[in-house]
Amino acid sequence: MRHTISVLVENKFGVLTRVTGLFSGRGFNIETLNVGPTQDPRTSRMTIVSVGDDQTLVQVVKQLNKLVDVIEVKDFKENEYVDRELVLIKVKADAKSRAELMQFCDIFRAKIVDVQSKTLSIEVTGDESKITKFINLMGNFGILELTRTGKVALSRK
Amino acid sequence: MRHTISVLVENKFGVLTRVTGLFSGRGFNIETLNVGPTQDPRTSRMTIVSVGDDQTLVQVVKQLNKLVDVIEVKDFKENEYVDRELVLIKVKADAKSRAELMQFCDIFRAKIVDVQSKTLSIEVTGDESKITKFINLMGNFGILELTRTGKVALSRK
Repeated sequence: MRHTISVLVENKFGVLTRVTGLFSGRGFNIETLNVGPTQDPRTSRMTIVSVGDDQTLVQVVKQLNKLVDVIEVKDFKENEYVDRELVLIKVKADAKSRAELMQFCDIFRAKIVDVQSKTLSIEVTGDESKITKFINLMGNFGILELTRTGKVALSRK
Repeated sequence: MRHTISVLVENKFGVLTRVTGLFSGRGFNIETLNVGPTQDPRTSRMTIVSVGDDQTLVQVVKQLNKLVDVIEVKDFKENEYVDRELVLIKVKADAKSRAELMQFCDIFRAKIVDVQSKTLSIEVTGDESKITKFINLMGNFGILELTRTGKVALSRK
């Protein structure tokens, strides 16, 4: 199953390597991961999306909780959280296709962040299904570059 | 100095741990990092923001290029790229402060993604200076939770 795990860690040296090492050591593939400081500069929050069987994941979460620099681990259940992702996409665009691209951006509330004579760079945010749909549509124009942040999540409580 | 590094890697097992290990092994602290699949599901792109001296970084980039699963490494120079970040923030909100919070969201084009009787969850995207300003403003209301994706970047070329 697919899991969204949020890990609050102390901003100590090498903690990221220790956390990702725990996943790879147990044969869990990390699909997306991101880490950044929280409102307290002494701590960072990691959000990890990983696929694997549920029982092994329970073990991984236990091991995570045992790491000295880990403060809190949350394994989000469906509908318990809000999640968002940001994607930057550079697509081929000429005088002919630009208008259509701009229509799609309008519909998806995506923003054009850079223009060159033959390309458009677009920023789009949303949940997974919206992002997937937008990327698929952009595929028809020709994606030159794509970089995504991976999900971040907040509990609804 | 602060560096924004983009690393295109093959989607192989443990590559994330090897890349982050290279940074921590050289004494480089990773400020933010994110990784996710590109338009080609066989590859992922990582964006790393790291602080350290320039000479050591040249070494890190060289070492990165030598890793088997690394396809391309870019060390972005200022003004050569567009960067964006997404942040989800849960702030304290009551009947009195909610209107003011909504004004700020309007000004920053931030979106309210969840409401509870005593909290608001907000999504905001932008470059670093915008994000920092918004977080500082939210600090006056009381930040309960904050999760950020870290920067993603696209070259302007």
